[in-house]
Amino acid sequence: MALAAAETAPTGARRNQKAVEAAIGALAAQFGNRLVTSLAVRQQHGNILTWIENQPPDAVVFPQSAEDVQAIVRICAQHRMPVIPYGTGTSLEGHINAPQGGVSIDFRDMNQILAVHAEDLDCVVEPGVTRKQLNEYLRDQGLFFPIDPGADASIGGMASTRASGTNAVRYGTMKDNVIALKVVLANGEIIQTARRAKKSAAGYDLTRLFVGAEGTLGVVTEVTVKLHGIPEAIAGGICPFPSVEAACNAAIATIQSGIPVARIELFDELQVKACNAYSKLNMPESPLLFLEFHGTEAGVNEQSERFGEIAADLGGGPFTWTTNTEERTKLWQARHDAYWAVVGLRPGAKAFATDVCVPISRLAECVLETQRDIADHKLIAPIVGHVGDGNFHVSPLIDMDDPAEVAAAKDFSERLVRRALAMEGTCTGEHGVGQGKMKYLAAEHGPALDVMRTIKHALDPQDLMNPGKIVAF
Amino acid sequence: MALAAAETAPTGARRNQKAVEAAIGALAAQFGNRLVTSLAVRQQHGNILTWIENQPPDAVVFPQSAEDVQAIVRICAQHRMPVIPYGTGTSLEGHINAPQGGVSIDFRDMNQILAVHAEDLDCVVEPGVTRKQLNEYLRDQGLFFPIDPGADASIGGMASTRASGTNAVRYGTMKDNVIALKVVLANGEIIQTARRAKKSAAGYDLTRLFVGAEGTLGVVTEVTVKLHGIPEAIAGGICPFPSVEAACNAAIATIQSGIPVARIELFDELQVKACNAYSKLNMPESPLLFLEFHGTEAGVNEQSERFGEIAADLGGGPFTWTTNTEERTKLWQARHDAYWAVVGLRPGAKAFATDVCVPISRLAECVLETQRDIADHKLIAPIVGHVGDGNFHVSPLIDMDDPAEVAAAKDFSERLVRRALAMEGTCTGEHGVGQGKMKYLAAEHGPALDVMRTIKHALDPQDLMNPGKIVAF
Repeated sequence: MALAAAETAPTGARRNQKAVEAAIGALAAQFGNRLVTSLAVRQQHGNILTWIENQPPDAVVFPQSAEDVQAIVRICAQHRMPVIPYGTGTSLEGHINAPQGGVSIDFRDMNQILAVHAEDLDCVVEPGVTRKQLNEYLRDQGLFFPIDPGADASIGGMASTRASGTNAVRYGTMKDNVIALKVVLANGEIIQTARRAKKSAAGYDLTRLFVGAEGTLGVVTEVTVKLHGIPEAIAGGICPFPSVEAACNAAIATIQSGIPVARIELFDELQVKACNAYSKLNMPESPLLFLEFHGTEAGVNEQSERFGEIAADLGGGPFTWTTNTEERTKLWQARHDAYWAVVGLRPGAKAFATDVCVPISRLAECVLETQRDIADHKLIAPIVGHVGDGNFHVSPLIDMDDPAEVAAAKDFSERLVRRALAMEGTCTGEHGVGQGKMKYLAAEHGPALDVMRTIKHALDPQDLMNPGKIVAF
Repeated sequence: MALAAAETAPTGARRNQKAVEAAIGALAAQFGNRLVTSLAVRQQHGNILTWIENQPPDAVVFPQSAEDVQAIVRICAQHRMPVIPYGTGTSLEGHINAPQGGVSIDFRDMNQILAVHAEDLDCVVEPGVTRKQLNEYLRDQGLFFPIDPGADASIGGMASTRASGTNAVRYGTMKDNVIALKVVLANGEIIQTARRAKKSAAGYDLTRLFVGAEGTLGVVTEVTVKLHGIPEAIAGGICPFPSVEAACNAAIATIQSGIPVARIELFDELQVKACNAYSKLNMPESPLLFLEFHGTEAGVNEQSERFGEIAADLGGGPFTWTTNTEERTKLWQARHDAYWAVVGLRPGAKAFATDVCVPISRLAECVLETQRDIADHKLIAPIVGHVGDGNFHVSPLIDMDDPAEVAAAKDFSERLVRRALAMEGTCTGEHGVGQGKMKYLAAEHGPALDVMRTIKHALDPQDLMNPGKIVAF
């Protein structure tokens, strides 16, 4: 086993090879066939979804409890081996790569829903539970968990990347929906970041510190999340606009008027065309907003009508909406298939997925400048946005085997980030930093990045918790 | 000046007296008459509202900019003098005391509203702006800032104590409503914790780390907060219940059914009596819920009717409500005067204010046990609760000059905290830790308290930022 690891040594700074062998030996002794070192499995546990190169770990281990994770962290610390938490592997910025080697901790077998407290609207889950698994489990109780990144990600991974999605405009992001975490620290201690009370003023907010820390400060082994009652009624529909600007202005007006919209998603014209082709729809081929309203029957009707008036005032419409579940589902399926529809625009190419987020008042400007940039550089790059939050995704379609195309996409992504930062925005609204966006943090945070580094040094003095992500040690 | 400071040396660990004199001299040279060392002013800047003794600082300084604060922090660091940020002095757990001496930084003169971004529903304020000042400023624009602790606290102090109040059930706490902070660190660096984008996944959540840190990690010099549109319609009213348990169950059912209640406040029988006497009302003298609904005219009517049905099912009612502003204001004035009404129950006594928060499913049990404890110990101690969050306040009325009474109140408070912790709750929902609740953090957080201490050591290695609060160094 140790040999196989040596043959495909990971890139980047190397640990002492004897130490790697010793660590893997110790893990194998404790975990038997729950430790895997085959190249194929290791490669599956490195980055596979974007332009970032695959950097496999030395081994993959499948724990079954927090105590297992504690043992792994302790063994690895003894041998100075990095640990990299792994949920479903759907992250987009190289979060799960092992640039310095180490052990990938795969939470496949920690996928139990430990408790549902319906009266408190919360539940406690192991980190390997996926969002769809959780929602299927909850449905009979009339409850749901709203955070919905595109992939069927694990709750642990979603907490660690501060994930959000289409419902965030109403229900917030993981920052707002995690109540408490159980975490194994670099020193092997197990902590609980908070109690189950809905609010607390009792000390530093460790929950929010670990949410979005991408495993660089500790390994999450249990997550307590907020739940919501399934709305009595849901209305949804699409609304065409003469321009991206008009669509963005409609989103601003909707939020400002206090309509508690549950989802408000922008498609640019190219994205609409892609979806029409892929999902066999005939949506108007102009910028569109996809909307959804949650509430009582009377409430969603009122919200839908009000939105229709706002859209009409801005030259948009007609807003065609329905409370019929089947029709809505078909529409939202198209929204969820947006990624595959995009890929269909250029068969063989891969989407170079990226995201930024700006104050909503700058959104139209940012999207329009980005569209001009796309045209100037002759890219095929549809735009989809969670516009209620000022967050949008651009996905240039790239031949990943052509270094010139990859370089052009990287340059485009860099211009996009600079543009967002110049508009008081952030380099990533929801994908996270991983390896891909580390280089932008100095520009975004200035001296606050040193505070992040100070915290990293204090909590992980050997740089073993998912090293090479967020802050350079 | 230095002499005056020496004569009334603060309690606790002492700084070198020469250093105190040197620091005050350097500050006086830079700040002239914006540095004050009179005993009266210094005592006003120590704790004055509860049983916790008054521990005045060595001096009080009134900065006018972040750069002023930076200069103060640097001078103090040079002489190892603590700095204690001061907003309006309304904290209840000794947050503003100077147990080791030091300089109180009073934000009285940093009270400008720097920017209102109506389209983005946010604004940027100096820390000395009070919540009422902000809301008066915003009213003409149809916007409001919802967080409402009892006092007219400063936004900086509210951020630092993670304040909440009656609106938190719908609008969240300061944790949810602060977008970014400007902070002067212990090393004198000025950082911005985040951009103005509504969400971000770009690194550690420094905003949430400083929210609730009570000035122990740095001094807040600017706050960017979320705003909300003033609701088109507001309905409010009161509803009597046969028991505290029935009232709590009505609160649970309301939250669970997804009614977006804006406020849901419990008064126990004693509190109702106190308010009737103080505010000249004739509310039914039984446990009551005060409610408020925000939305459209149709929406608030629907919500009010639904709540009425829930209350009736649980033996409560009638729920008398109105959308008339004048009637509502009178009712909520009584709610806001609850503290003074309590004090009126025993003239000459002071309220020993404390709060805890538990999962809402345990709320009735926790309140009932607390009422039994109050009766067993013959205390006069009304209960008011933000029951949508599981948070409640108890205020034993105490003769503060009688050590036996103070000791009895402390014992009661300790039992209350133990009870809340045993029910998965927290020792404080919104008052914060300060000095008063430090002793409970080990029981509440276990080894996570060491993580807080590690962060404190890393960011404030000399223990100069509001020392003796939250974590013992």
